[in-house]
Amino acid sequence: MKKLINDPADVVGEALAGMAGAHPELRVDVPNRLVLRADAPVPGKVGLVSGGGSGHEPLHGGFVGLGMLDAACAGEVFTSPVPDQILAATTAVDAGAGVLHLVKNYSGDVMNFEMAAELAAAEGGPEVAAVVVNDDVAVQDSLYTAGRRGVGATVLVEKIAGAAAEQGRPLAAVAEVARLVNERSRSMGVALTSCTVPAAGKPTFELGESEMELGIGIHGEPGRRRVPLAPAREVAEMLSEPILSDLPFARGDSVICFVNGMGGTPLLELYVMYNEVARILRGHGIEVARSLVGPYITSLEMAGCSVTLTRVDDDLLNLWDAPVRTPALRWGV
Amino acid sequence: MKKLINDPADVVGEALAGMAGAHPELRVDVPNRLVLRADAPVPGKVGLVSGGGSGHEPLHGGFVGLGMLDAACAGEVFTSPVPDQILAATTAVDAGAGVLHLVKNYSGDVMNFEMAAELAAAEGGPEVAAVVVNDDVAVQDSLYTAGRRGVGATVLVEKIAGAAAEQGRPLAAVAEVARLVNERSRSMGVALTSCTVPAAGKPTFELGESEMELGIGIHGEPGRRRVPLAPAREVAEMLSEPILSDLPFARGDSVICFVNGMGGTPLLELYVMYNEVARILRGHGIEVARSLVGPYITSLEMAGCSVTLTRVDDDLLNLWDAPVRTPALRWGV
Repeated sequence: MKKLINDPADVVGEALAGMAGAHPELRVDVPNRLVLRADAPVPGKVGLVSGGGSGHEPLHGGFVGLGMLDAACAGEVFTSPVPDQILAATTAVDAGAGVLHLVKNYSGDVMNFEMAAELAAAEGGPEVAAVVVNDDVAVQDSLYTAGRRGVGATVLVEKIAGAAAEQGRPLAAVAEVARLVNERSRSMGVALTSCTVPAAGKPTFELGESEMELGIGIHGEPGRRRVPLAPAREVAEMLSEPILSDLPFARGDSVICFVNGMGGTPLLELYVMYNEVARILRGHGIEVARSLVGPYITSLEMAGCSVTLTRVDDDLLNLWDAPVRTPALRWGV
Repeated sequence: MKKLINDPADVVGEALAGMAGAHPELRVDVPNRLVLRADAPVPGKVGLVSGGGSGHEPLHGGFVGLGMLDAACAGEVFTSPVPDQILAATTAVDAGAGVLHLVKNYSGDVMNFEMAAELAAAEGGPEVAAVVVNDDVAVQDSLYTAGRRGVGATVLVEKIAGAAAEQGRPLAAVAEVARLVNERSRSMGVALTSCTVPAAGKPTFELGESEMELGIGIHGEPGRRRVPLAPAREVAEMLSEPILSDLPFARGDSVICFVNGMGGTPLLELYVMYNEVARILRGHGIEVARSLVGPYITSLEMAGCSVTLTRVDDDLLNLWDAPVRTPALRWGV
């Protein structure tokens, strides 16, 4: 295992300590493994909390700040955060307007966020709503997940719901925006290589020199099938067509097109992939209103990418364009 | 070779076409392989042109925009851009205030930027000044380079000189700022794996399973020595100590600390490395005024990182903090 780490058991804590140093504009609670807006709770604003296993950086800690998340809970690598941790985040960001949990659809995450909400209710704590993200068209059930997995759409849900919260919309309305973004989003990914979880010390799975795994999950969960390596234009078809037919997206739709790097794929290749996906969308008469290209929801050093399409209307586009100031997404301020 | 590409000969052009689609706020001249500010030439402003081989993305095209570069020239992967291309960029961004070439110290880059400046002069074109970046303390001469290589400091030179140009400083003053940032910057990198140039189809070099290359260049050029894999805290020492003793940096200095990913190393590990470097700096009584952590000057999918330290004063810090709006660095606007 070739990694720039110390003891594998310390990776998450040390990375959070690094984040604390590199981002003094945030409040990082290293013992509780929380990244918080320094000004949380923000008076009058719904608090947004997300989180999940580490190893997907910049997700979620890199999306904490004005216009996006109020708090992120970091679990061990590829391991759900615990209920107490989520409860602490929920309490810390509550300004009286309620708290929205944004949860990727993995059984452990869903269960622990639910338990945290129950603990908050039992304490007479903040009102909590939850939206589960499940945008991955690749497989129905999977290792760790009943139903569809939450993948790339998580970034868009966090951004757009974050903007709605920043505008002062009430809890039910912010939850409705998050639900709408999830409903209108579909994703699919491909891996060219595995990743290695530090505590495991060996690759999560094996892929032959001329194979790729189509429909991979962000933890290296099996996808739809193994296929031979193919040129970018064919890979783009293999990822885009299942997405387009699933919602389905239709001629005249306006979308945000997100080409995400899994961690080990250079930006050069992501732009090549974006070029191919954009060409396919033109062929379907779909307009790309906005785009995002880069490693935003990763699987450690896995080589590969995912494509996410989100059908947008004017309200969602305005929320996407609204100011955001986080370590990983920043514009308008 | 596992890459998300089509024909290796088309990678750079297709990636630029992808950039054009993903960043409509830029002007991308795909045939000439230029990325330009859409509003170039900006009246009254010194034009900033950089460029170099592709494969280091987001450098340089991702740094084009308000407050940073006016144009970037993309060569083939790890190959210098040609003089005609640099001349076209120089002419395109000239608003009468002159043009500054920011050149990483590689023999081909230096020669081709010089030839472009001579061609501009022969045409009665814009006044051109050049600053060569050579911040790598690892080796004196190297494959492709006489003297020290230009690496991480390039990002800081482009940002800070870009801000000086945006303020309306004249050509000589912007060049002086660029020179100052370079003089006060030192870098060193490490590779855990090689990268594969698409046209070559095989790794640039071989590294054993338990080895790393200390002092690596951004094209996989040999470094100082091969050493056994070591924990992040020891790697941080191996990179930081040669940097600190070279300038030398001294107790009480204020620095920008840049921990750069080489492409294949996850952000999680970069934050672990940042945490170690920050600890070393505290031990030396050096204050980290600002920091930057992420993959900004990469070597395709190489795993590894580099550390850059730049000694700053109030003027340089203000220029660093000034608004920037580019695909890869964005704040204040």
